[in-house]
Amino acid sequence: MPEPCQQIGIIHSPFKQKFGIPRQAGLIAEASGFVELLPPYNQPEALTGLEEFSHVWLLWQANTINRDGWKPTVRPPRLGGNQRVGVFASRSIFRPNAIGQSLVSLGDIVTTQQRCGFNVSGLDILDGTPLIDIKPYLPWADALDDAVGGFAHDKPESQLKVRVAQEAVAQLELLRERDPQMMRLIERVIEQDPRPAFHQSDRQYGISIGEYDVTFRCIELIAHITSVAQMDEKG
Amino acid sequence: MPEPCQQIGIIHSPFKQKFGIPRQAGLIAEASGFVELLPPYNQPEALTGLEEFSHVWLLWQANTINRDGWKPTVRPPRLGGNQRVGVFASRSIFRPNAIGQSLVSLGDIVTTQQRCGFNVSGLDILDGTPLIDIKPYLPWADALDDAVGGFAHDKPESQLKVRVAQEAVAQLELLRERDPQMMRLIERVIEQDPRPAFHQSDRQYGISIGEYDVTFRCIELIAHITSVAQMDEKG
Repeated sequence: MPEPCQQIGIIHSPFKQKFGIPRQAGLIAEASGFVELLPPYNQPEALTGLEEFSHVWLLWQANTINRDGWKPTVRPPRLGGNQRVGVFASRSIFRPNAIGQSLVSLGDIVTTQQRCGFNVSGLDILDGTPLIDIKPYLPWADALDDAVGGFAHDKPESQLKVRVAQEAVAQLELLRERDPQMMRLIERVIEQDPRPAFHQSDRQYGISIGEYDVTFRCIELIAHITSVAQMDEKG
Repeated sequence: MPEPCQQIGIIHSPFKQKFGIPRQAGLIAEASGFVELLPPYNQPEALTGLEEFSHVWLLWQANTINRDGWKPTVRPPRLGGNQRVGVFASRSIFRPNAIGQSLVSLGDIVTTQQRCGFNVSGLDILDGTPLIDIKPYLPWADALDDAVGGFAHDKPESQLKVRVAQEAVAQLELLRERDPQMMRLIERVIEQDPRPAFHQSDRQYGISIGEYDVTFRCIELIAHITSVAQMDEKG
């Protein structure tokens, strides 16, 4: 059996719950966070030269998955949730080893006495997820222009138009002033249509992003944000 | 700490020793092998739909690395072996978790009672390496056309021209007739210049590829194959 992986770091992300996380890295540029190395791996030298790269792969391991739940097939949202494909023909996190592989944009590298790591954007990872590896993106090796991507060949289109419901206008104006980046992130996340494949059209959905609890309701392909509330800091 | 990874399969490769393995997947199309799923993961359903993809990521874990040997910096061959970069700015296998991530071309899928897996080419993995995950390559997510690859931005050029030394002509003619694909693989591997950065010009190097032991010697940038011998099948 392979040796157990050591946790080398932790991923700080605006996604506090699984619902709403983009279904692939890079889909939402606004989804930014911080990748923090933990002792004994938090040595600035270990990141020397990384700043020359524009993108990095993060390998991480979902720590909330019941391993007994593994099945040989899964139902990817891309196929409407009603068609099964092999687990190895998908990137579902419900797989034998719950390893995720996310390609993110690299931002500033931070190596102070308190913190060793780097900013990233384009995240699709739950806040607090254990990091097990970081690898630079090599364009000549990783960017294949002749690859064929099966049932998931094309980028998913944004599914929903996002509007603000009458009752939430004041809250969202306030947010847009105070934290315009968070406002954009919330809009992008809802645009991707995070609802499960078989959704009830009249249901209100709740989503936690950063410090905010957001609710929305859909009328056909328009999502109306119905409330935004700042969570208790201790959440 | 993350849960230990299960070995889900094994990689059958022509590379029987570390010396000579290409320094990235995809560099040598002729490097083909078989990815075999092991029980309880060898269920044909787990591969359903994979045949629609042209390329797959293999995640594997080097099982021959001394974990104590991890250092925060490494000396990549791309920089001549005399300049250090951070281990996370490299894909060196000498890293905290010895996980490799290889992008390979997908060949035929085989699901018989005896064997469940698929053929691949473009390998850069040692024979017998434990497999921990398989993920389909998604062109829209993985192929970035604007990425910058730091010190390793461009594809490495072939370093050596390969010739056959006078004393090996008969052996290699025989090989070329019997197994032309192996002959091409041997040439490609030596072309990549597998020698360590600080090499003695007059040394003879030995390399094991598939069932063959090959020796070569370099005179400036020309590699002369000096012998090819078929190993004992039980090798």
